Amino acid sequence: MIVPPFTCPEHNRQILLVERPVGIPQPEHFRLSETRRGLPQDGQILVRNLYLSVDPAQRGWAADVQNYSATVALNSVMRALGVGVVIESRLPSICPGDIVYGWTGWQDYCCLDASGVLTHVRDPDIAVSSYAGILGINGMTAWLALERLGRPKTGETVLVSTAAGAVGSVVGQLARAEGCRTLGITGSDDKAALCVGRFGYDVAFNYKAPGWLDELDAAAPHGIDIFFDSVGGEILDSAIRRMRTAGRIVQCGTASIASWDPPPAGLRNEREVLSRRLSWNGFVIFDHGADFPAAITRLEALIRNGRLVYDEDVDNGIEAAPDALRRLYAGENTGKKLIFIG
Amino acid sequence: MIVPPFTCPEHNRQILLVERPVGIPQPEHFRLSETRRGLPQDGQILVRNLYLSVDPAQRGWAADVQNYSATVALNSVMRALGVGVVIESRLPSICPGDIVYGWTGWQDYCCLDASGVLTHVRDPDIAVSSYAGILGINGMTAWLALERLGRPKTGETVLVSTAAGAVGSVVGQLARAEGCRTLGITGSDDKAALCVGRFGYDVAFNYKAPGWLDELDAAAPHGIDIFFDSVGGEILDSAIRRMRTAGRIVQCGTASIASWDPPPAGLRNEREVLSRRLSWNGFVIFDHGADFPAAITRLEALIRNGRLVYDEDVDNGIEAAPDALRRLYAGENTGKKLIFIG
Repeated sequence: MIVPPFTCPEHNRQILLVERPVGIPQPEHFRLSETRRGLPQDGQILVRNLYLSVDPAQRGWAADVQNYSATVALNSVMRALGVGVVIESRLPSICPGDIVYGWTGWQDYCCLDASGVLTHVRDPDIAVSSYAGILGINGMTAWLALERLGRPKTGETVLVSTAAGAVGSVVGQLARAEGCRTLGITGSDDKAALCVGRFGYDVAFNYKAPGWLDELDAAAPHGIDIFFDSVGGEILDSAIRRMRTAGRIVQCGTASIASWDPPPAGLRNEREVLSRRLSWNGFVIFDHGADFPAAITRLEALIRNGRLVYDEDVDNGIEAAPDALRRLYAGENTGKKLIFIG
Repeated sequence: MIVPPFTCPEHNRQILLVERPVGIPQPEHFRLSETRRGLPQDGQILVRNLYLSVDPAQRGWAADVQNYSATVALNSVMRALGVGVVIESRLPSICPGDIVYGWTGWQDYCCLDASGVLTHVRDPDIAVSSYAGILGINGMTAWLALERLGRPKTGETVLVSTAAGAVGSVVGQLARAEGCRTLGITGSDDKAALCVGRFGYDVAFNYKAPGWLDELDAAAPHGIDIFFDSVGGEILDSAIRRMRTAGRIVQCGTASIASWDPPPAGLRNEREVLSRRLSWNGFVIFDHGADFPAAITRLEALIRNGRLVYDEDVDNGIEAAPDALRRLYAGENTGKKLIFIG
């Protein structure tokens, strides 16, 4: 485990949410601020954050519409996951020097109680940053949602949107390991090449290229058994009309929809659900905290054996976080988006 | 078992599909014709039909769009289920005098092989017509779809569309028997009263009345656990936005949509699937033929014990069938729609 050197000053830089975004958060909705770092109370740890995570889910946390979690209050630290090193612990189960992954927020330091820690690692021989990505909610979403809701079987055809992304690139590899034919959708020719060349997809499509649906039809002449979707919208409408009988749609995100307020219109899909006997399920990783340790163990083993590759796209400096989120939605990242602040 | 008296003439009246409907089939899409009745081949039975079934699914069978079953050819007998008495048998397992429920078509006589028989009853002490309704695909859909896809638990809130209909009226009673709170949606104040007074719904709503959604909100302040839907459209859009986390939508029909060609637009629902972690499943009863005998046994027991009531709405004469189908879609039926031709 390599923990970069750091100093421990008294000040704590924070990215505050200062304006409520409608749709995709933009840099102007945030402001860099500075305060004194807090002191851990009984039952808390003080964490020096190393990698801050940039996740599509942050749009929902910042928005003022009903969601699976409370809205981030204006002028408070932007909610975020991150990986950090424990500096001081008033929690018996965690020692100074341990690495934790949890609800750090976009800031240099945080005080967490046990509920704020998702993963706790004492002696990893895997890069610390991994715990904020492939061994964080991204990899765990891929593993748990595919296994539980996708239920892949050998020989099935699995279509993945955001196929080169932090979740999709893992889904493709896991599905392939299950003996499935894997088809990836992504937003550029370069990323499509990455899907095939690096993540082992059988075929990948650039959805911005005209005629990509014809390519999809040629690649999946009998239709799709599992659609692992993180984008929704027109790509979903196209995929649902190509599902095989008894197919499964795993809904992990709706990144293609710029704003849900008001809800946009689209094709009605209930007839597809009925006539194809689909099972269309929503997945939110935070329902599955109890399964994280087992999922991490499994993914760690695949990584150690070289059977699971992943990419990280790291920016430097806390001030880079807001624009990194914008670029994530613009599809400009290559792999798991992280901010290194160690 | 009461089998009405009948003669066995040589001629066979048939309702032919003569024009391809777009949307709801209307009487002008059909024509009454007459032919000589067929002779059963080896492995077939000759059936004198008694009750012809009128089902929402017939729209899909008559339409020229992709569906779960082949399209009825123009100028051939309209596909339909029905109950009849076996006149002659060249199938070892079935005797003359037996009652069968199966793919009779809208006609006086039919020759069926074993695959055309869904249910075979030798000595029922339940009315013959029941086997075309509550003990036919309607009751079996209610039972199997609710149990397998709805998975009701005591104390949950179950919302049912077409709550007074042949499927919905059974779903409401079965869900109530499981200890659920049952809410019904129907198309008139009279039917809403029937839902509560006869089928035991806790509350029922007339969706044509202004303010019915406010009533629904008052009746389900914490939301809906199971939505058993046979209509789709705006009622589905309203219900999905009231689902509780981990709720289940059982899609058994899309009767409210006049035409799927071209597919109509509506609210996008993928965000609801995701953020509420819904499980939205399509159900087609014909996938579940192997489970019919067990389901019938269970429903027969409930009927005998007086724990399951049902209504039939019977028209007389084969020529009444086309208009009966139109009226079914117009919501003008009261209970399972049948045509008596015995």
